[in-house]
Amino acid sequence: MYRFACDYQEGCHPRILKALTQTNLEQTVGYGCDPYCEKARELLRQVAKAPDADVHFLVGGTQTNATVIASLLRPHQGVLSADSGHINAHETGAVEATGHKVLPLPAVDGKITAKQVEDYVNAHYADGSHEHIVQPGMVYISHPTENGTLYSRQELYDLSRICRAYHLPLFMDGARLAYGLTAAGNDLTLEDIAAKCDVLSVGGTKCGALFGEAVMILRPQYKEDFRYLMKQRGAMLAKGRLLGLQFLTLFTDGLYTEIAEKANRQADKIRDALKKSGFPLLYETRANQTFVVLPNEILAFFSEKYAFEVWGKPDEEHTAVRICTSWATEDEAVRQLVESIKAAGV
Amino acid sequence: MYRFACDYQEGCHPRILKALTQTNLEQTVGYGCDPYCEKARELLRQVAKAPDADVHFLVGGTQTNATVIASLLRPHQGVLSADSGHINAHETGAVEATGHKVLPLPAVDGKITAKQVEDYVNAHYADGSHEHIVQPGMVYISHPTENGTLYSRQELYDLSRICRAYHLPLFMDGARLAYGLTAAGNDLTLEDIAAKCDVLSVGGTKCGALFGEAVMILRPQYKEDFRYLMKQRGAMLAKGRLLGLQFLTLFTDGLYTEIAEKANRQADKIRDALKKSGFPLLYETRANQTFVVLPNEILAFFSEKYAFEVWGKPDEEHTAVRICTSWATEDEAVRQLVESIKAAGV
Amino acid sequence: MYRFACDYQEGCHPRILKALTQTNLEQTVGYGCDPYCEKARELLRQVAKAPDADVHFLVGGTQTNATVIASLLRPHQGVLSADSGHINAHETGAVEATGHKVLPLPAVDGKITAKQVEDYVNAHYADGSHEHIVQPGMVYISHPTENGTLYSRQELYDLSRICRAYHLPLFMDGARLAYGLTAAGNDLTLEDIAAKCDVLSVGGTKCGALFGEAVMILRPQYKEDFRYLMKQRGAMLAKGRLLGLQFLTLFTDGLYTEIAEKANRQADKIRDALKKSGFPLLYETRANQTFVVLPNEILAFFSEKYAFEVWGKPDEEHTAVRICTSWATEDEAVRQLVESIKAAGV
Amino acid sequence: MYRFACDYQEGCHPRILKALTQTNLEQTVGYGCDPYCEKARELLRQVAKAPDADVHFLVGGTQTNATVIASLLRPHQGVLSADSGHINAHETGAVEATGHKVLPLPAVDGKITAKQVEDYVNAHYADGSHEHIVQPGMVYISHPTENGTLYSRQELYDLSRICRAYHLPLFMDGARLAYGLTAAGNDLTLEDIAAKCDVLSVGGTKCGALFGEAVMILRPQYKEDFRYLMKQRGAMLAKGRLLGLQFLTLFTDGLYTEIAEKANRQADKIRDALKKSGFPLLYETRANQTFVVLPNEILAFFSEKYAFEVWGKPDEEHTAVRICTSWATEDEAVRQLVESIKAAGV
Repeated sequence: MYRFACDYQEGCHPRILKALTQTNLEQTVGYGCDPYCEKARELLRQVAKAPDADVHFLVGGTQTNATVIASLLRPHQGVLSADSGHINAHETGAVEATGHKVLPLPAVDGKITAKQVEDYVNAHYADGSHEHIVQPGMVYISHPTENGTLYSRQELYDLSRICRAYHLPLFMDGARLAYGLTAAGNDLTLEDIAAKCDVLSVGGTKCGALFGEAVMILRPQYKEDFRYLMKQRGAMLAKGRLLGLQFLTLFTDGLYTEIAEKANRQADKIRDALKKSGFPLLYETRANQTFVVLPNEILAFFSEKYAFEVWGKPDEEHTAVRICTSWATEDEAVRQLVESIKAAGV
Repeated sequence: MYRFACDYQEGCHPRILKALTQTNLEQTVGYGCDPYCEKARELLRQVAKAPDADVHFLVGGTQTNATVIASLLRPHQGVLSADSGHINAHETGAVEATGHKVLPLPAVDGKITAKQVEDYVNAHYADGSHEHIVQPGMVYISHPTENGTLYSRQELYDLSRICRAYHLPLFMDGARLAYGLTAAGNDLTLEDIAAKCDVLSVGGTKCGALFGEAVMILRPQYKEDFRYLMKQRGAMLAKGRLLGLQFLTLFTDGLYTEIAEKANRQADKIRDALKKSGFPLLYETRANQTFVVLPNEILAFFSEKYAFEVWGKPDEEHTAVRICTSWATEDEAVRQLVESIKAAGV
Repeated sequence: MYRFACDYQEGCHPRILKALTQTNLEQTVGYGCDPYCEKARELLRQVAKAPDADVHFLVGGTQTNATVIASLLRPHQGVLSADSGHINAHETGAVEATGHKVLPLPAVDGKITAKQVEDYVNAHYADGSHEHIVQPGMVYISHPTENGTLYSRQELYDLSRICRAYHLPLFMDGARLAYGLTAAGNDLTLEDIAAKCDVLSVGGTKCGALFGEAVMILRPQYKEDFRYLMKQRGAMLAKGRLLGLQFLTLFTDGLYTEIAEKANRQADKIRDALKKSGFPLLYETRANQTFVVLPNEILAFFSEKYAFEVWGKPDEEHTAVRICTSWATEDEAVRQLVESIKAAGV
Repeated sequence: MYRFACDYQEGCHPRILKALTQTNLEQTVGYGCDPYCEKARELLRQVAKAPDADVHFLVGGTQTNATVIASLLRPHQGVLSADSGHINAHETGAVEATGHKVLPLPAVDGKITAKQVEDYVNAHYADGSHEHIVQPGMVYISHPTENGTLYSRQELYDLSRICRAYHLPLFMDGARLAYGLTAAGNDLTLEDIAAKCDVLSVGGTKCGALFGEAVMILRPQYKEDFRYLMKQRGAMLAKGRLLGLQFLTLFTDGLYTEIAEKANRQADKIRDALKKSGFPLLYETRANQTFVVLPNEILAFFSEKYAFEVWGKPDEEHTAVRICTSWATEDEAVRQLVESIKAAGV
């Protein structure tokens, strides 16, 4: 059985384990104030060409989203998000638990547009009863999205322009950012993203680390006292250096993008095989996630050898599944899967 | 200018003012422990044929909804509601501010069905990731709904049956309950409602009182410590007797239903005129709210003499408005409005 | 039985009932946007000589405190308060329910000092672990305090100076403000208070109204979007004019201070009798609340004719009680109580 | 410079790194449903002789405390805790951020007594205004406490008896549990603790792991849906097996207690030296934390070679510090510190 169900089913890239092992008995101060965190921060600022960014290291994605959002909003404000967005759909109401409503916008393939944001905000203030309605206070996007899709440069720039025009901080959840930066057809650099977003998370958990998300706060008005909020939300790791070491390793010698690029190429092969075999893809993706509709009996056949994640039931006879590659996926497993897909094709 | 914009634009029924005046300088204990509250509680239990109900008096509707919902849910649970439900649309996220997500169901004319609830709950537990999703923990309905519509006896019984089967408390927001109980075609008594809901609010503010909502907790497992929660949410009025006196007056000699029935008959006349004049109604309502689509120039004509509430813009040339009657609406104003509608008709 | 237990055991000043009656069937818009609220706002600004203040009307004290505090703080911040402060002791955790810790300072007779605030803030930032500790974000005082005592001009000015030096908004809970402004020895005017506080509540419930608290936001940086927060906390009354009318009446022709002054003089007589009879007062008060320690048998004797509020048990043989006068207390009742006290004296 | 400042300044016990390395590229399901977590759960149940306990693995201590407490309380309830308790003093209001007040009891050396709890609860219900006061809903203790002290068998049994009599769940924060179980004079076994507490956390972060706290829910009424709450609070690690592997390693072959016992013996040597040298200890501790008052110039002398944590300033000339040993402390460093203490003695 080989697992293509998600991108967090193995441990971490061996270089990270090596770094942890080499430094294991060193003594450092806690809570992210150690030299490894400091170096990792500096490296992230360099790579993103954001020399003034505040960089923080948190443990997991749900925690990161809730902490960032609670920090940016006042009590009467909500966060605009794709209805399919992780904060709306798969975090057990972590944002609501901080007191804020997620304001869902109907997404197309996981994405929302500048126009949707603008229309929503204008409609809010045009409504005579707007004080009776949650005020849109920020915008959340994920990149890649939960559907594996990507914002284009133009789309992100448009969103950023509208957000700044309306004083709405724009927060990008980059849990799978590595895969986005290296997908075929992607035209966004980390520098672009850092210039156009106000807060950005750079995912470690799904991109080669054992765990960990870096948060970059890119504009000064959103920086104040973020470490207090981290502590309050349980997001300040005692042995913070574990996070610093991991991000330091991931951003040294281009490891972060190197491992993601490989996973994307593997996914391209799988997608190519699926298309050739006549299995319809749910979304046009180029990063590490592939969504495909399979006849149930074909899925049963695959399930003897591979684990996929069930994504939905379009009808009685078919099942939609997600097929993930990751930094850890083996070429041989991909080769076999491709063979299986060809064999299953019509 | 005569206002038909809402049902809270006047003070209160004169009998209430009289009761307040007559008792004004009496001394009583505070916080709802006075004899007037006690009598009003007893009266409500009798009228609803719910001798074991706990009855509490709160000040306003948003407060009532948030207090009840926060009392019934555990932190990871949300409340199922029509997407058009007041808690989802017009309370500035009061429920989310208590930490809970409102789980919106697509409503038809403001109502949700037993089948929607059942399907939602089944889908939740069938999802392998259900621990990552807000758990449906209760059901909120309003009666009449925000669209002025009513649940039939069958519909409510079906909802209640499903809710009890799944151990979901069913909470009815009766902010306009008086109008619902007396609408033409209504087949639900207060006794039916008290038997089938778990918590019920009985609206005062829109039904003849200066302010105030009664909460009836109808089943023992939901009663504990509700007064603590009221205090915490600012819903325990110091001079609680003001609420007791108002509900005592409203439920003496059938005043509550008498005044609502009159308002409904007035609304029937307005609806009848609108239909005859060819103006399409948005929803089939029989209680005190009427929703109609008017050509903009007709609305401009009406607006010289009447205030309505804008409900939406179906297209550039038309506006949807709400026309409300209430316990305070004068027959003469209705007569004139009906004349104006006839004059505006095609 | 005559009740001296608290200052909310009667209805309201007759002039208010008259105003409500006279305007009862007038139609106005809701939610505090009516002409009566507008006039009341203007009047409060004039009386406080605070022409730029935002003025809002809320229903009750707990609600007012929680709404103001939630509006002023970020998530990691708490509110400094006397340990005996109402928000810390008698609001069932309403502030904590908005996510914020009350940071209690040991009070002397209900009051805290500028030095305590300064020391607390300095100690916070001097602590190397301050990010692990709730940050002091504002200061709450009540005036009169829960112990009936008053801040002097000098004390308030000192507090204000420290608060402004440390950018901590200073919020005065004036639930009994009328009694404070008219107590013997008081040297603070409403104008002084408005100049030195950042947010001020002006109590109605305990000072002649049926219910209602006015909130004055005195500095621009704290004004934004307060009405959204009111709605979210259930503090925006549908028939807001009820609040406007009450404050308009209270602040017309000096009624607010006139009725409080009378209550204070009545309390002076009671205190005078208690002292002469040898019963020790707990705090040196000059406003409408008196706290006295009575032998249990004397209390039993009083309790046949009068209701007091039990305030504590200093020892087995004695009980501390609160004796309140109010705008509604009758001179004859005071005369009789004074006689009883004399009769009980040693 | 050798650090004795805290017990989280190194990585993890080498056996843990070895286990992580050996399993690194294995594929498992996520979120704590993997075989390693399952085995670790079984092992903990065995060691605690609590075969029916639910066992969950969370990342950090603040997160664990907030998640457990939010799961156990209803909205109007607070948690009784020593005033020096971690939740009251050093978690940036994480508990309050979930809506609950921490109810501080004056601690003696970090501990609270059954009598304090009983008196508090009785006083609460005896107060006529108890609905206006946060209801005590559970009891939090830490063992060892923040002051390094330990509950005796008798003290814990008394607390447990009172808690069960009043239906208050008793939650023990065992962030440093390993050191408590192996301290000289300790008379509590893990089995005792599991029998007498309702929820228990078993610390990993400070006891040899990279990170991680195990939560044991020991009585059925507190188990329901805890995983939803973990997810909501960001406490459900994607690669949950990292936690399972660590606890599996710690509880195999007695590693958990073996490493703690060594640290305690090292601390005993340090304490012995301090006493002999005439430096007064703040609390009588036998586990891995030592609190001592040092003249400032002596502290300056030590600070050239050792890092301690400042614990307070008893007066101008003295400083209180915490000296920690841990699973990682080297014998040679202890030997040198003991020599330095002797040299500094009077």
